[in-house]
Amino acid sequence: MYDRRKLRWNGWGTAHTGFEFGPREPEVWAWIAEALGRREFARTPAVPLPDIDMQASRLSEALVEKFAAIVGHDNIKSDRYERAFHARGKSYPDLLKVRAGDLGDQVPDAVVYPEDFGEVQAVVELAAAEKVALVPFGGGSSVVGGVTAQRGEGQAGVVTVDMTRMNKLLTLDTVSHTATLEAGVYGPDLEAQLQARGYTLGHYPQSFEFSTLGGWIAARGAGQQSNRYGKAEKWLLGAKLATPRGPWTTESFPASAAGPNMNQIVLGSEGTLGIIAEATVRVHPVPEHRDYRGYLFKNFAAGTAAVREIVQRQIPVAMLRLSDPDETRFLQGFSGQQHPPGRVTRLGERLVAWRGFAEDRCLLLVGLEGERDVVFESQVATHGACDRHGGFSLGRGAGRRWYARRFGMPYLRDPLLDRGIAVETLETAVRWANLPGLYEDLGSALREALRQQAADVQAKAIVMAHISHVYEDGASLYFTMVFPQRLGNSPADNAVVAAEQWAVVKKAACEAIAAGGGTISHHHGVGTDHAPWLAQEKGPVGFDLLAGLKDRIDPHGVLNPGKLISPG
Amino acid sequence: MYDRRKLRWNGWGTAHTGFEFGPREPEVWAWIAEALGRREFARTPAVPLPDIDMQASRLSEALVEKFAAIVGHDNIKSDRYERAFHARGKSYPDLLKVRAGDLGDQVPDAVVYPEDFGEVQAVVELAAAEKVALVPFGGGSSVVGGVTAQRGEGQAGVVTVDMTRMNKLLTLDTVSHTATLEAGVYGPDLEAQLQARGYTLGHYPQSFEFSTLGGWIAARGAGQQSNRYGKAEKWLLGAKLATPRGPWTTESFPASAAGPNMNQIVLGSEGTLGIIAEATVRVHPVPEHRDYRGYLFKNFAAGTAAVREIVQRQIPVAMLRLSDPDETRFLQGFSGQQHPPGRVTRLGERLVAWRGFAEDRCLLLVGLEGERDVVFESQVATHGACDRHGGFSLGRGAGRRWYARRFGMPYLRDPLLDRGIAVETLETAVRWANLPGLYEDLGSALREALRQQAADVQAKAIVMAHISHVYEDGASLYFTMVFPQRLGNSPADNAVVAAEQWAVVKKAACEAIAAGGGTISHHHGVGTDHAPWLAQEKGPVGFDLLAGLKDRIDPHGVLNPGKLISPG
Repeated sequence: MYDRRKLRWNGWGTAHTGFEFGPREPEVWAWIAEALGRREFARTPAVPLPDIDMQASRLSEALVEKFAAIVGHDNIKSDRYERAFHARGKSYPDLLKVRAGDLGDQVPDAVVYPEDFGEVQAVVELAAAEKVALVPFGGGSSVVGGVTAQRGEGQAGVVTVDMTRMNKLLTLDTVSHTATLEAGVYGPDLEAQLQARGYTLGHYPQSFEFSTLGGWIAARGAGQQSNRYGKAEKWLLGAKLATPRGPWTTESFPASAAGPNMNQIVLGSEGTLGIIAEATVRVHPVPEHRDYRGYLFKNFAAGTAAVREIVQRQIPVAMLRLSDPDETRFLQGFSGQQHPPGRVTRLGERLVAWRGFAEDRCLLLVGLEGERDVVFESQVATHGACDRHGGFSLGRGAGRRWYARRFGMPYLRDPLLDRGIAVETLETAVRWANLPGLYEDLGSALREALRQQAADVQAKAIVMAHISHVYEDGASLYFTMVFPQRLGNSPADNAVVAAEQWAVVKKAACEAIAAGGGTISHHHGVGTDHAPWLAQEKGPVGFDLLAGLKDRIDPHGVLNPGKLISPG
Repeated sequence: MYDRRKLRWNGWGTAHTGFEFGPREPEVWAWIAEALGRREFARTPAVPLPDIDMQASRLSEALVEKFAAIVGHDNIKSDRYERAFHARGKSYPDLLKVRAGDLGDQVPDAVVYPEDFGEVQAVVELAAAEKVALVPFGGGSSVVGGVTAQRGEGQAGVVTVDMTRMNKLLTLDTVSHTATLEAGVYGPDLEAQLQARGYTLGHYPQSFEFSTLGGWIAARGAGQQSNRYGKAEKWLLGAKLATPRGPWTTESFPASAAGPNMNQIVLGSEGTLGIIAEATVRVHPVPEHRDYRGYLFKNFAAGTAAVREIVQRQIPVAMLRLSDPDETRFLQGFSGQQHPPGRVTRLGERLVAWRGFAEDRCLLLVGLEGERDVVFESQVATHGACDRHGGFSLGRGAGRRWYARRFGMPYLRDPLLDRGIAVETLETAVRWANLPGLYEDLGSALREALRQQAADVQAKAIVMAHISHVYEDGASLYFTMVFPQRLGNSPADNAVVAAEQWAVVKKAACEAIAAGGGTISHHHGVGTDHAPWLAQEKGPVGFDLLAGLKDRIDPHGVLNPGKLISPG
């Protein structure tokens, strides 16, 4: 686990890491300013922790003692840093709040760090008996308000359960290719423990460095190589949760016809039905070979046709990632500032222009992992499919560059927010037949809402998208928005005004998604931010059944109030 | 749909079909008699329908009128044939009952045949209001008591909802490779409608000819080619159910992080949470090429190692089916009676014997389907894996023979039962690491229980097994038992004694499965027969959550009483 003091409490990464601009940082900023219609950037630094007012802990000393009796005095914390660190996740609205120092009453009264399942179960039972809200917390990287320190009506306070001391590989079954791990293990630690024995889970979300196994399961996460390794719902084989009704160990079989699959209820439960403490997962031998390469397509439709063909023909790929024209331009422009194109690149650029790749061109990254022979055969097959749809091979350079920086983008948000620039993402998944329509409508809705909400008349917004998870029946659509914030007259006021600006845009996006046949989230989850849209998506009967599950397992509603199906 | 009058009400298939013994039927029977230690067979014919006492319908005329008002008078039936046909499924205990004419009070008071979703919903709402038990019925091929016409405490009667008039392909999305169908469609009709447009679901369980889409979903079924097309939980993309709380349409996306996946609650719900009326499923282009072939292995361990390697290396196969030594001997012996081996076969036999394939040898069938090139590459890869584990190629003949008779075995049960011979199957799934132990222990438990329960001192039992569904983390184990029945002094007495004999064996099997880390069912389901084992498998919290779902959606318990989680 990471020492919490070394992590940014109100941003991404450790105190000593940041976005790697390289030596040409000024040129990069000038290019961003130009793209956003800024002559100069605002100065909107985050309020430092010592300047922030924090309400006193609402927990009685007696109650603190009861929690301490379970986890030990060393493992219950209520200092300002720990409380602030655990107040919220990493959504744009979260960052607006914490950077403005506006923690309000959404800050935990204490943080406990259990060491084993027994302690988690005891904490849950104590909280249920004493009506204290519990917020399970791994990496805290939720981008949908999934870890906000919120309590339900009449609850005595909020205790965050930081799971990261529970980070051990418990068993590895090299015959069945399964592993059982404690759920608080961070991505790098999980992979280090598995890879030391020759295996991998292969789940590499963009948040990999700072998210945990339990969070990936709770939010039905997806790694960048989900085609090969699966979303969480594919690799979770069994779970052990602490619940107010006692320990809950789900069935764990290769397949079963013995009633509904309870693992699929745990997946996406976001801490509202129990705290995921251990998980059995599918693992794979560390791949013998990797091949990542790029292709250019003349437009989004051609690229989409290629990725659809590849997945529907079941050609074994690890990743297909197709950027739309806006994202392709952005990536090329950004990288062109960092590393000005040399002669070969400029010649290549002339070649593709001559071949008719113009403004609408799209970059596709094809990632292959596995046995050397299979990777080679897949490379031939994917190349053929790309070729059939007019794809132009960029070779391995584009793939190598993406791979090297695949966890890098989240680091860019903090320096942007320091300059009055918002960056936020949202994502959905939709059937292939509905994908072109939703791509158009959602893009238009975002652009229109951002235009209406523009900070000023010069302000421009970047709206760009990619397909990054593909299925035989459809794909995810992932949008990134970068735009100048609307600002007020003080840091606190700034945060309020910018949050209002974003709320309008977010609402427009959610409406477009629902209207276009998409899900409210493909892998980010529901949390607080998508909760208002969940009932519509599940329908009245489905939602009522989920509410019934919640009532049954957590009658006092102490588990993660305000998220998903949990009354707040 | 099949005309119910042309189907065997108390057996398998139509009145004009049966097991294809070929011209050497007497030799086949002599061989079976020898194998079971019978000098001659008992004569235990089924009681014909006209000789059976059937209780009068318990439904008031007024209530019948209310159902008729929904489905029309032509579509509510209460004649003896319809009531007997819908009384039970096709498990061995079911057949003992119906063949003895012992319908007791487990016979529907009426059968309704709704035409569309609106009628199903209206029937469910009426039944909930009037406290009438409803049993959803497709092909009625359940082998776990899933369609027994049972009512709950205080309920006014039992109405079976025969779904087979609802058999239309509603939409086919050739871009997304999805189809929406009414759930009462039989296998052959479903495939005919899809294949006419170039697509296939690819779900071919052994019951394919006489089972329906809704039943496959309700019981989490598996087709023989599940490696390529998936168990029901892989191909179900969305469902529409009629429930006492109103119509329930589940979410339907390529993937989603918006909370638990409700489709995975519908899957395996066995009619206890609603009547599955429509389903959206994943379809595939009709495969360009098929390649089925056989391999011999020196023992079960070597064959198991080969199939594990194939699936864990993700070589794309449609089917891997490994018979254990007993099943291999049985299949060879049985087929040897039907088609006495010619000179080439006898030479081949000498060759494999000379190569060291003795009593413990095992037959593996490898099925490949898909694009011609992919099938060819997979054939090379599977051949290599088999070779590495000492597999001896039998070529395509063995595959062709199996494929031609792949739906044939269920027809053999009726003539066996006519001769005092029981045949029953059971199945589980387990991790690879636990598979050898469970295979041994379950086989021993079955043989020991059958020895203790033997009809007489000469009686011998055949206990044989195969692996037929494989996963990266484990596989199914499917056991078939053939043995002389214990008989009493009359047809009715016979059924009671034989049922007691089997109950002891079944209990021993279920205990061995639970002790060995297996699931109580891989694809047969729970029904009445496995219901006593479900709570243990799901654990107290999981089972309580399922019970909570049931209470929430069907507070009066009218949906399929006595099955799965439904109080009986």
